[in-house]
Amino acid sequence: MSIDGLLLDIDGVLIQDGAAIPGAPDALRAIGERGLPFRLVTNGSQKSRATLARQLTALGFGIEAAAILTPATAAARYLRDRGTTAYLATREDTRADFRETGVAVDDQRPDYVVLGDLGEDLSYAELNRVLRFLLGGAELIALGRTRIWRAPDGPALDVGPIAALFEEATGVTAAVFGKPDPAVFREGARALGLDRALVAMVGDDAEVDVAAGRKAGLGAGLLVRTGKYRPGDESRHTPRPDVIYASFPAFAEALLKGEMSAEKPQPQDD
Amino acid sequence: MSIDGLLLDIDGVLIQDGAAIPGAPDALRAIGERGLPFRLVTNGSQKSRATLARQLTALGFGIEAAAILTPATAAARYLRDRGTTAYLATREDTRADFRETGVAVDDQRPDYVVLGDLGEDLSYAELNRVLRFLLGGAELIALGRTRIWRAPDGPALDVGPIAALFEEATGVTAAVFGKPDPAVFREGARALGLDRALVAMVGDDAEVDVAAGRKAGLGAGLLVRTGKYRPGDESRHTPRPDVIYASFPAFAEALLKGEMSAEKPQPQDD
Repeated sequence: MSIDGLLLDIDGVLIQDGAAIPGAPDALRAIGERGLPFRLVTNGSQKSRATLARQLTALGFGIEAAAILTPATAAARYLRDRGTTAYLATREDTRADFRETGVAVDDQRPDYVVLGDLGEDLSYAELNRVLRFLLGGAELIALGRTRIWRAPDGPALDVGPIAALFEEATGVTAAVFGKPDPAVFREGARALGLDRALVAMVGDDAEVDVAAGRKAGLGAGLLVRTGKYRPGDESRHTPRPDVIYASFPAFAEALLKGEMSAEKPQPQDD
Repeated sequence: MSIDGLLLDIDGVLIQDGAAIPGAPDALRAIGERGLPFRLVTNGSQKSRATLARQLTALGFGIEAAAILTPATAAARYLRDRGTTAYLATREDTRADFRETGVAVDDQRPDYVVLGDLGEDLSYAELNRVLRFLLGGAELIALGRTRIWRAPDGPALDVGPIAALFEEATGVTAAVFGKPDPAVFREGARALGLDRALVAMVGDDAEVDVAAGRKAGLGAGLLVRTGKYRPGDESRHTPRPDVIYASFPAFAEALLKGEMSAEKPQPQDD
């Protein structure tokens, strides 16, 4: 397997519970110094990539905003390329990604509604505003389809159920941006300037990162046993991970030593 | 067909756009004076039946709260009969129906969550509160499954899409109270003290009032061409209406003259 570039998940791979995974900043720096290009691919829709880059930098990762791909950056590029207008039902910070990309925002008769995690901005008035745009013919874009995220005070609604609400109310089907949509991985390879077959995805989710990346044509799907990983995950989804590592630093060490197959999983019968 | 009692829809049958349908108050009074018992059956979950009775009285209908059946009164009876606790995710006014019935409210570890039209009380914090109860094992009761209602300023989300949100988020299936649930019509006949076969349902919705009432075992389903009625509705759902009337007053006139079959629909081939 020849790996010329990397797509890295953020939550559960580089950081966990708001802190860097031990050794991860050094590991990422070592990969950069070796000249191996990478992009970070996250499904978060609460923060702009500028905010994410700032927070990662504060945790010791030398990351530029341009190196981060989010559902918002993918949707923004999609809308801009089509020259359509959109209403942004997202947090204020996320709107920055659309402004920077040059998306035309329309609060009166938008072609699209972009639905992100609204958080505390969610209200009956705001939901009805989106409802009326959709009844008027606007199309719905969801920034991911995650059901629940772990807020500091407990489980909280993510974008998926809010998209389901509008699907039930209006009969529309939301176009979902973000993993596991194959477009995310193709966009990542394009951003690296590499053929997909030369790119590896590294994630803690055997389904949404690893199997989805492989299905999208990436050369390898690598699973780390941190973050949301639970024993047995590697056998639950196909394609299965090409290699499994204890953590991102363990992966980086093997990669830089040229030993990427060191922990190759045993063949399994089930 | 022998009709000894009536179940009457409110919106589109007795009232429309906040006003009495012309002649409807007199027609209902004449039915009462003839000694024919009736109950009003509505799917609204924004108001207690006390509030509904007050508003109908102001429009000229002599209605007592006890004569009105709502999804809330049905759910309240269900919960009280089982001696379970519930968290009430409804408007404050609707909670009166549960208090009067003697339902034990629990804001910490409820057995059930009752979901009504929250209106302006809908917030991210309130939705997450319900989410956590459901993840903790509470069951979900929805006060109807209507998708959209016509608010004064335009279409607005009703209970159905909010129930869908929680179904997507948690995998639970909401138990729906209110029409077209057959329990509503059975409860109406019980409240009248009559065998179902002797009760007629009068509504403007050929599916949710008329066909559903017949499927639940009522003796007749009568359609009125007011409210949400659109030409052709009578052929779209089975069982089809037994009789169709121009309006509730036209029905009352035929009923009191003993001419209930006057407008019987022609047999149709489709």
